[in-house]
Amino acid sequence: MEIRERIGWNVRRLRAEREVTQEDFATDSGIDRGYISGVERGVRNPSVLVLERIANALGVDVSVLFDEAKAKAFSARRQR
Amino acid sequence: MEIRERIGWNVRRLRAEREVTQEDFATDSGIDRGYISGVERGVRNPSVLVLERIANALGVDVSVLFDEAKAKAFSARRQR
Repeated sequence: MEIRERIGWNVRRLRAEREVTQEDFATDSGIDRGYISGVERGVRNPSVLVLERIANALGVDVSVLFDEAKAKAFSARRQR
Repeated sequence: MEIRERIGWNVRRLRAEREVTQEDFATDSGIDRGYISGVERGVRNPSVLVLERIANALGVDVSVLFDEAKAKAFSARRQR
């Protein structure tokens, strides 16, 4: 799984666990909703400081966004 | 420890373990030596794809660059 997809699936996974819409998440993080959507689809290349804002809004450490096993498990469930 | 410093200390730590100079590491990763130096000092804000190039050149997964405990331990040893 490509690194940007790995991050994207983890953001989707954590947002889904928290039952937060993309729109509310955009407000929480102060990041544009379209940009969030692009991160989730793995088409954006966020910087470390943007990742930190995303992680803070999700209440996790940045390292959690790089959890490959959880990203794969979540994407497998979603794509079934 | 600020997120960019955490990454910086981990890059220094892994580069030191491999006994690779900044110059050789720049060649390995294809990233400018001045930029590498800035990442190590925590003054750059690298994107995910740049972090991946750095991690690949160090032979680790990107998530290793976010290991806070190891960054802190290494910085404590260096600053003593």
